[in-house]
Amino acid sequence: MEQDKQNDVQSNLMLNKKLSRRDMLRLAGVGGVGLLLGGGAIGSILSSEIKTKSSPSTSLNQDPDSIPFYGAHQAGIITPSQNFICFAAFDVIADNVSDIRKMFQKWTTASASIASGSLIGNVNDNPNLPPSDTGEAAELSPSRCTITFGVGPSLFDARFGLQNKRPPSFQELPLFKADSLEPEWCGGDLCVQVCADDLQVAFHAIRNLARIARGTAVLRWTQEGFQRSAQADPKSATPRNLLGFKDGTANPDATDSTLMNEVVWSQSIDGTSWMTGGSYMAVRRVRMRIEVWDRSTLSDQENTFGRHRHTGAPLGSKDEFDTLKLDEVDSKGQPVIPTNSHVALAHGDGSIQMLRRSYSYSSGMDLKTGQLDAGLLFISFQRDLQKQFIPIQQRLANNDLLNEYAVHKGSAVFACFPGTTEGGFIGETLFGRI
Amino acid sequence: MEQDKQNDVQSNLMLNKKLSRRDMLRLAGVGGVGLLLGGGAIGSILSSEIKTKSSPSTSLNQDPDSIPFYGAHQAGIITPSQNFICFAAFDVIADNVSDIRKMFQKWTTASASIASGSLIGNVNDNPNLPPSDTGEAAELSPSRCTITFGVGPSLFDARFGLQNKRPPSFQELPLFKADSLEPEWCGGDLCVQVCADDLQVAFHAIRNLARIARGTAVLRWTQEGFQRSAQADPKSATPRNLLGFKDGTANPDATDSTLMNEVVWSQSIDGTSWMTGGSYMAVRRVRMRIEVWDRSTLSDQENTFGRHRHTGAPLGSKDEFDTLKLDEVDSKGQPVIPTNSHVALAHGDGSIQMLRRSYSYSSGMDLKTGQLDAGLLFISFQRDLQKQFIPIQQRLANNDLLNEYAVHKGSAVFACFPGTTEGGFIGETLFGRI
Ligand code: HEM
Ligand code: HEM
Repeated sequence: MEQDKQNDVQSNLMLNKKLSRRDMLRLAGVGGVGLLLGGGAIGSILSSEIKTKSSPSTSLNQDPDSIPFYGAHQAGIITPSQNFICFAAFDVIADNVSDIRKMFQKWTTASASIASGSLIGNVNDNPNLPPSDTGEAAELSPSRCTITFGVGPSLFDARFGLQNKRPPSFQELPLFKADSLEPEWCGGDLCVQVCADDLQVAFHAIRNLARIARGTAVLRWTQEGFQRSAQADPKSATPRNLLGFKDGTANPDATDSTLMNEVVWSQSIDGTSWMTGGSYMAVRRVRMRIEVWDRSTLSDQENTFGRHRHTGAPLGSKDEFDTLKLDEVDSKGQPVIPTNSHVALAHGDGSIQMLRRSYSYSSGMDLKTGQLDAGLLFISFQRDLQKQFIPIQQRLANNDLLNEYAVHKGSAVFACFPGTTEGGFIGETLFGRI
Repeated sequence: MEQDKQNDVQSNLMLNKKLSRRDMLRLAGVGGVGLLLGGGAIGSILSSEIKTKSSPSTSLNQDPDSIPFYGAHQAGIITPSQNFICFAAFDVIADNVSDIRKMFQKWTTASASIASGSLIGNVNDNPNLPPSDTGEAAELSPSRCTITFGVGPSLFDARFGLQNKRPPSFQELPLFKADSLEPEWCGGDLCVQVCADDLQVAFHAIRNLARIARGTAVLRWTQEGFQRSAQADPKSATPRNLLGFKDGTANPDATDSTLMNEVVWSQSIDGTSWMTGGSYMAVRRVRMRIEVWDRSTLSDQENTFGRHRHTGAPLGSKDEFDTLKLDEVDSKGQPVIPTNSHVALAHGDGSIQMLRRSYSYSSGMDLKTGQLDAGLLFISFQRDLQKQFIPIQQRLANNDLLNEYAVHKGSAVFACFPGTTEGGFIGETLFGRI
């Protein structure tokens, strides 16, 4: 009983996100001794802790190392990129929506704890039970961890009676010309995108969410990734991908909320109310032909992208952020930026935009070829896949010079829910509250 | 000609490690413009750069973000662990020592550049040639990058006439009782261990070294890993492994050079002169049965290791660094620390030590089982494998409670050379200077 009361206090504490993982551990240490003295002692230790620790909840939002989990939109979409990603696609093995709903409720609570740097569940672990948190991120800081959930088109098949909830323009991608997809890197009923500045924190999140899903959903495929921007100005400098080029330069400004409403966030006029404030994700596991690339000349490389390698500037320009002049020609009348370069094709007439949020991946050696299995976990968010991702990828698949050096091996799309507030849960707009 | 002169200046600069990757890029930018003005202009820009940049070489050793590549011992052995590892085993495909020697000479020069945060080779890339550096680490800091080289027992077979250079006690490990080895994670003629605080910097190093090896050696297997110690005191706090326990607590003190000479460094009296100042590495890819572990109780988990999860203290003690009291019994006369716990068996009578330098790994999902392929890339350094690693691993393989939760899937041993000084190369003691 006393023990239960203490647990309640502790889990409330955690829900309120007042204590860091570090604090909880310290508390747990105190509790461990306290137990021998009787629960009362602990109760009072805990309540004094509450007093010293409690603070207006806005203070947490100001911690640059912690990104609030709750909000109108899910975090991890327009959030400035963290250094690491652990991405997982899951398949649902339950046969009813109610189990899925329960899982999302638990996922939401756990994710809010993780994002605030707390341990999951009751830390004062009963020695005769499995610990509620697997523990490898204990004492580590929140590390700007974000956890973003979505559902794939397959969730709207006959299994759960959700057929007529599928947004009309949300379906599996068509096969593109250059595709070389492998089924083990494709699809998924659900996705969880964890990003953090600490890989161990990100791993801990995916592992614990997979654990919570047990019996309801199983892993289908996972991919880790990393990215690093230059030290001088880590928050704003553009990171380089594994082909050595700055990647992300021409992204729309994620701090411009009008623009984000146009490009990224699903709007009520788009007709799918449960997705209003959410966003559609395209994810492509693009393997790079590193060895071939490394043998190509600098000028081939620059023509492939249509940008200079060192500066990231468009060919013929000086500065990374100079505008693309796609109609400029050289003395021989040839376009300065080749028409089939990656940026020329991706940019087109500039009328279609998307928010890219990709990570490099390196998954050791490909045993079949003896070469490094490395590339880009391409991720983009958009308001409508049909109007944004698909037409651009169509142009690239047909003509991009980059296709000589990059092969699409994996592919999936997910409808990423709007955010929720404390007390609610991610997915409530689709699965309903009870 | 002017171009060549400039290249020489630049590569000297890089050999002297006076310029960071960032500086070199800036220079390359200047050079790019300079070229249009004619080489002479660049020459003078460069020499003014030399003047402003040059500084006593000791100043570099004081940069906490850069670990000197040259020295009596190779870096990356007693160096405090960085956050990431990229480990690669290579097989030699050349048929003579002279090619191997040339590769190690190039590897040494490239590694010294990487460790100092410089680009590899001549940055002022000729557009008609492949760039000398693949570029993804441009502008990133040295990130305490260390690169450590070793050779496996297979290098001493008949191929290269090195048979009688094999240290008598250096051979493939015996098969241990609990082994479940898979050939794709075993062995190798050579190894390269890259560690850095930035995964992109570490990846860049392995990729460029593999590129330099082309025609002489090919990748055999690779594994990436990570580890994170607590934020409060990142340099000294013990990181947790993926089973949630602090890992590294009982390591011998790497700052005690007398102890390191006893435990880690091969000595001249050990009889293999080319290894004096080097160390023998054992590497084991140990897959964890994460899902089984996560269902076991806290008390089972603590009994498995013989330590408390939260504090890392030995069972029955309070502090992480309290000494193991293996003869202590509880009220029922049972040992407080189970005799078949990991620490009881690994510690034994305390007479055998080794320096562990392991990393957690997470390699996505095992497609066969649908479970996370995660665990420990166990790495230890010792003066003699027969006297240190083998007897301890023997005890563990036969009785360790941890065997229920961990399976050894990969295994290799390498003789890691002593260090070298500027002008020399790693491996010169075995392959000879010419
Ligand atoms: C290996 C795969 C890929 C690599 C290495 C890559 C790399 C790059 C690079 C270096 C740039 C120029 C800098 C920048 O603006 O970020 C760029 C631009 C862009 N990429 Fe990709 N990309 C890849 C795949 C894709 C895919 C699959 C799409 C979408 C279907 C895409 C869409 C875009 C867009 C929209 C731009 C901006 C074009 C502009 O308006 O200037 N990329 N990419
Ligand atoms: C999955 C594999 C393994 C895990 C998770 C693991 C974990 C641990 C942990 C948590 C400790 C206690 C804290 C510490 O002193 O670091 C420890 C101690 C130790 N382990 Fe392991 N270990 C593993 C494999 C091995 C192997 C293969 C060896 C050597 C053959 C080894 C040798 C040792 C030694 C020598 C100690 C220190 C014992 C003492 O003197 O107190 N471990 N290990």
